Amino acid sequence: MTTFGQRVRAALDEYGPLCVGIDPHASLLEEWGLDVSAQGAREFGLRVVDGAAGRVGVVKPQVSFFERYGSSGLRALEQVIAAARQSGLIVIADAKRGDIGTTMDAYGEAWLTPGAPLESDAVTVNPFLGVGTLEGTFQLAARGGKGVLVLAATSNPDAFTAQRARMADGRTVSAGIVADVSERNARTTPEGQWADIGFVIGATVDWHDAGLSTLAPEAPILAPGFGHQGASPRDLRPRFGSAAPLVIASESRSILAVGADRVAARVSERAAAYREALGG
Amino acid sequence: MTTFGQRVRAALDEYGPLCVGIDPHASLLEEWGLDVSAQGAREFGLRVVDGAAGRVGVVKPQVSFFERYGSSGLRALEQVIAAARQSGLIVIADAKRGDIGTTMDAYGEAWLTPGAPLESDAVTVNPFLGVGTLEGTFQLAARGGKGVLVLAATSNPDAFTAQRARMADGRTVSAGIVADVSERNARTTPEGQWADIGFVIGATVDWHDAGLSTLAPEAPILAPGFGHQGASPRDLRPRFGSAAPLVIASESRSILAVGADRVAARVSERAAAYREALGG
Repeated sequence: MTTFGQRVRAALDEYGPLCVGIDPHASLLEEWGLDVSAQGAREFGLRVVDGAAGRVGVVKPQVSFFERYGSSGLRALEQVIAAARQSGLIVIADAKRGDIGTTMDAYGEAWLTPGAPLESDAVTVNPFLGVGTLEGTFQLAARGGKGVLVLAATSNPDAFTAQRARMADGRTVSAGIVADVSERNARTTPEGQWADIGFVIGATVDWHDAGLSTLAPEAPILAPGFGHQGASPRDLRPRFGSAAPLVIASESRSILAVGADRVAARVSERAAAYREALGG
Repeated sequence: MTTFGQRVRAALDEYGPLCVGIDPHASLLEEWGLDVSAQGAREFGLRVVDGAAGRVGVVKPQVSFFERYGSSGLRALEQVIAAARQSGLIVIADAKRGDIGTTMDAYGEAWLTPGAPLESDAVTVNPFLGVGTLEGTFQLAARGGKGVLVLAATSNPDAFTAQRARMADGRTVSAGIVADVSERNARTTPEGQWADIGFVIGATVDWHDAGLSTLAPEAPILAPGFGHQGASPRDLRPRFGSAAPLVIASESRSILAVGADRVAARVSERAAAYREALGG
């Protein structure tokens, strides 16, 4: 069984850092001439998968835009995830789930159990209730060769209340989260491999201000905020420094807004821009 | 249109603070002789609704235990929520969703849009990305007479990293969340009414340690941690002080573990214990 860390590393080696977001926002469904419904979201997702397959390594469906339609939306998402994985794409379910104990474990099971209807390669989680509450999910991920990406630092000013606050030892909450996960990764990750538990760190986060430094061991970094939200491929090196090769650079609207017919071409173009920026 | 704050207040006046958690945990499904499946979760939920209707005012389905089964689990949840609302119960969907911008708005729409398949009376949300990211959800709630309960403080030691950290002005993150929401409530809530945006504060949280004080204006407090998790009805007054009348006291396992046949009797017994403890 290959691990999530190994699969992501191989995918980024082959295709570069670009990850295509699958965000069937109501306004995009309208622009694409699709129904604002679960059926429209399904059609949208399948077309994005078609445009992404063979051009990037990773896609990131945004769960809320499917959950919006209730169970039929989640059914559409199941079909989109299955099609993506069938095409060889790594699927990160952007669900940002967070809870405690067996409640959190059930979220992990929903998204990471091999054979489950929503089975993905990794899920994003929210550590507001404590990194320790995610331990069951981390263990479940390891058993299935899956990954977990822990929200660590975002750049929206609203987030500073919780993320840039300081713990008793003076570190920021963001730094504490990265340290707790990295300590666990150090115990569980074979020398030289990428860890399976990574982070969500916004593309425009100021690492110094957030109290972040080099990741040890290396772990995937999902970085939203590229494209429409402000960061460009050229920001990869200056923003992430030595961590730049770990970045899964997520773009959504900047790719999806070109319309259904031009998605594949746009994906190719953007993927090449990221590879070039990394000098690869 | 009655507001969520008005409905909760009337329900607590009539039935007292007990809220029955609907947690179809795999082990409980087995104890109840039900399939560990979406169908089992549906059956479980409908039986709990039967046992709760007319005996308490509020139920709280735990979304993860339905999401566990993917879209078919969410379909079961839709049926449980609809049955509960049909019976006159107030439904708090315990989803703890959190994200930014239109992504967060789509979660709000999923749970709070009148007529949506998952339509509930209120949803729990996670403020790790900032209270400001929840503004669209707050506005959506107001338009539909719905409520939002914001995670503010829990008592699990893991949670202290993020929740008890201190902002630049020395307040805890928990206190900052309560202050930001309360400030908004003060602008939007008519004099003497309960606000529609309330909080999730664990039953065993030390308010002083968490930096919390009296809520102004008054707002519902969903308090998990009663029953199996450690707090008893007699803790209501000493723990919550003058805020005790605002508390929606959630019990799950302590009620559900008695088995399907005894749930109604157990709900009546526990509901009476809470009413007595409040001296009502």
